[in-house]
Amino acid sequence: MNQYAREAWYPLAWSRDVGRNLITRRVLEDDLVVYRTEGGAVAALEDACPHRLAPLSIGRLLGDTVECGYHGLTFDCDGRCTHAPGMPRPPASARVRSFPTAESMGMVWVWMGDPLAADRAAVFHLPAYDDPAYSVIEGDALPVQASYLSLADNLCDPTHVAFVHPTTLASTGREETRVQHERQGNKVVTWRWVIDGPLIPVFQGLKDFGGNVDRWHYYHYHAPSIAVIDFGSARTGTGAPEGNREDCIQMYACHFITPVDERTCVQHWLVLKNSPADPAVDDRLRAGFRHAFDEDKRVLEAIQRNEDKPREWQRVRLALDASSMKMRGIVEEMAAGSTPASTR
Amino acid sequence: MNQYAREAWYPLAWSRDVGRNLITRRVLEDDLVVYRTEGGAVAALEDACPHRLAPLSIGRLLGDTVECGYHGLTFDCDGRCTHAPGMPRPPASARVRSFPTAESMGMVWVWMGDPLAADRAAVFHLPAYDDPAYSVIEGDALPVQASYLSLADNLCDPTHVAFVHPTTLASTGREETRVQHERQGNKVVTWRWVIDGPLIPVFQGLKDFGGNVDRWHYYHYHAPSIAVIDFGSARTGTGAPEGNREDCIQMYACHFITPVDERTCVQHWLVLKNSPADPAVDDRLRAGFRHAFDEDKRVLEAIQRNEDKPREWQRVRLALDASSMKMRGIVEEMAAGSTPASTR
Amino acid sequence: MNQYAREAWYPLAWSRDVGRNLITRRVLEDDLVVYRTEGGAVAALEDACPHRLAPLSIGRLLGDTVECGYHGLTFDCDGRCTHAPGMPRPPASARVRSFPTAESMGMVWVWMGDPLAADRAAVFHLPAYDDPAYSVIEGDALPVQASYLSLADNLCDPTHVAFVHPTTLASTGREETRVQHERQGNKVVTWRWVIDGPLIPVFQGLKDFGGNVDRWHYYHYHAPSIAVIDFGSARTGTGAPEGNREDCIQMYACHFITPVDERTCVQHWLVLKNSPADPAVDDRLRAGFRHAFDEDKRVLEAIQRNEDKPREWQRVRLALDASSMKMRGIVEEMAAGSTPASTR
Repeated sequence: MNQYAREAWYPLAWSRDVGRNLITRRVLEDDLVVYRTEGGAVAALEDACPHRLAPLSIGRLLGDTVECGYHGLTFDCDGRCTHAPGMPRPPASARVRSFPTAESMGMVWVWMGDPLAADRAAVFHLPAYDDPAYSVIEGDALPVQASYLSLADNLCDPTHVAFVHPTTLASTGREETRVQHERQGNKVVTWRWVIDGPLIPVFQGLKDFGGNVDRWHYYHYHAPSIAVIDFGSARTGTGAPEGNREDCIQMYACHFITPVDERTCVQHWLVLKNSPADPAVDDRLRAGFRHAFDEDKRVLEAIQRNEDKPREWQRVRLALDASSMKMRGIVEEMAAGSTPASTR
Repeated sequence: MNQYAREAWYPLAWSRDVGRNLITRRVLEDDLVVYRTEGGAVAALEDACPHRLAPLSIGRLLGDTVECGYHGLTFDCDGRCTHAPGMPRPPASARVRSFPTAESMGMVWVWMGDPLAADRAAVFHLPAYDDPAYSVIEGDALPVQASYLSLADNLCDPTHVAFVHPTTLASTGREETRVQHERQGNKVVTWRWVIDGPLIPVFQGLKDFGGNVDRWHYYHYHAPSIAVIDFGSARTGTGAPEGNREDCIQMYACHFITPVDERTCVQHWLVLKNSPADPAVDDRLRAGFRHAFDEDKRVLEAIQRNEDKPREWQRVRLALDASSMKMRGIVEEMAAGSTPASTR
Repeated sequence: MNQYAREAWYPLAWSRDVGRNLITRRVLEDDLVVYRTEGGAVAALEDACPHRLAPLSIGRLLGDTVECGYHGLTFDCDGRCTHAPGMPRPPASARVRSFPTAESMGMVWVWMGDPLAADRAAVFHLPAYDDPAYSVIEGDALPVQASYLSLADNLCDPTHVAFVHPTTLASTGREETRVQHERQGNKVVTWRWVIDGPLIPVFQGLKDFGGNVDRWHYYHYHAPSIAVIDFGSARTGTGAPEGNREDCIQMYACHFITPVDERTCVQHWLVLKNSPADPAVDDRLRAGFRHAFDEDKRVLEAIQRNEDKPREWQRVRLALDASSMKMRGIVEEMAAGSTPASTR
């Protein structure tokens, strides 16, 4: 029953969506009630009063505590019952699970495993997020009716781009250049270079290279549920593959995936780019990424519907599956407890 | 498999909703077709023709019989087949279950157990319903997506009022006075007095007591599915707790619950009050009760969704659970057949 | 697990609905992607790429092949993979099931059994379809949320007409004349004559017989899923029962049923009549048939909802069930493989 790697930090909600009211999120099949304390910390409790199972989220936030909407049992941020109406003191057994949280990159993260093992220093953070050379394009919390592992497959896989995203992320030519991959700890990196080709559609208009470019696509998948896609272009012949990227377009597409249950996930995404914020440009880029991620969603949800059918399928494995197989292997190790989680 | 107490009279439909047409109701997971005969009695038959299982409710009412809409098999009020097209006489095995019915308090009641055990004298009736000192505020048939036992818990429990109904049924203060309860046969009575407090919101404007009141709340739960809440107020210090209620507001909130299935019920309710009918006042009161019962529905349906989750819950019991535990015990006894039903 | 007779030609889609785009149909719980090749033949493939299970229907039609919308695997009409991106040649195991098809009576038919056993000469065809004395009233593809066998019962049964179709297909009188039936190979014929009665409503206005008619109703059910109802009228006393039908109204109502799953089917229907096409008349007839078939749908879907309930039913058999029981027996033989399918 180790279907999920519980000992990990998972994206819970965008920081901008958590405030002084009770909201709910579902992570690894657990329903949580989430709120910000008066001091600004984020509390995440199991969303069920242990008395009659009323969701705490239909109760009231009182200071830093939550009062159940049925009989008024009150719980603090640690899940301890501080008040039980009609009783001199609450029963010792009256408590709800509390989940450690942390914030990084505009995201609230939640630790779903043993609270004592939660290490806030291990929460994912991309240095470019704090680098003034980069600006942030805030994205969405896109619900996907598919297994988070199926979305993860997609985010270890540069080869689908030509077929799924022909008008946004792919160049017009066939993309037959070799894909490489490598496991690095709990991360799988999958990459491809396209030498001397046209700009991809979403990059057009951002910079004039006066000709073809060399393009890179590095898919960093941090098991179990974070992907960072480092992709960019520099004028061909200027040595980008060798490391000279002084005059380039570079972006990091960050995907923070919340596994909701076995067939549902939420794809939180943002994009960093190495140029200043510009509302008009950023809106255009955001629209392009939305379009592309909706294309993935459509494919992944259709796959899920086939996977849900009660039948045996004869499956074929292709060369391109190697990196996602490796990624799934790491998740299985983590779920089995044989690999400690480290996302930093 | 004695999940329901079948040997009992259950509310089926408001009398005003049963006439010379075929309607359907679902009780204890049985679908019934219901109609009034030419003589005014109420017939309740299983809603499935034993030939091909077409619901009889999509057929026609012919006199006091129902003709199946598929092949014309015809059944009388007792479920006997009186005509089978193309056959000289109907097969002896062609019959549908027929359920005894009775009417009381504007409600049609149905006996779901052995028809020979149905005792119409045992159908629930509150004497105040016929007392000219009381007028009736007709209520609704409110569908609730929750177990009828969860609604029953709610109707054995004065303590939830302060948290669920702060603007209608609760006074502004904390309600910490002691709750008492007692089993009386198949009934559990749970009660609380509040001495020298303000009127509750729905009572305001009905009578001017010139000051604080003593309030009583007696929750009479007749297992398996009837609740009568006797609640009222008299000027404080005039001896209401000792029995002097000459100048008081008194109401009986009657809840007749139809268990539809394990997670669905219908809450039929009406309220009796000790003052003459007055359309404007009654409409205001009806709106107040509707608001309050919708508040319960919201809580109970949220609880049901948690209970439906495939997981083990650690539950806490509080002192206030004692009477509902007793009520559930009686229902279990009745379902096991060890306690005969008597609701009068 | 021989719940379906797989070795049979089943209706897949109206020929008019299959062209140079990818559509989907579900037959015997298999999802198929369907398209017409450049040469005009109909291809039907399993709608799941064997790589990641993406439905091929969300890919692209390229010539006579289908390209998967996820990674570009390409399959020909026979289900062979002709291209796998990034690989010198596709893996031998990369193939999808391909289903033989044929066209007859404006319908595409699909063979769901062993492709080697598919005999296009056995596809159903009614000679009147090509007879210039008959014109075609094109019907619909009516989805019915009921077992195809329940619809088949209905199409072996003249006796339901008086109860389900009183305003379209039934005369006003009670229809107590005797029904006869006979098995002929994989077909069951069920028939009834009504002598010296009024015209049925849908026939009114088509021809003036100056008085009563003799009416015939022959229900030809070709197991597993084709019904042809030959019904007509001639002036009474002119010898229609003995074979003289020179001056008559005659129609063939053809029902081609696609079993989708155990509780869903699609009723494809058309009607042939022995008079020239006339748009106004044909539109009126089409509306009448639609009305009648919707009446059946309502009954059959209500029956299905009862059959879906988790309970044991006491069922009664009537004389009229004999032919549908025989029909179901043939389907069972075919499903068990003991009776070869032959629909011609």
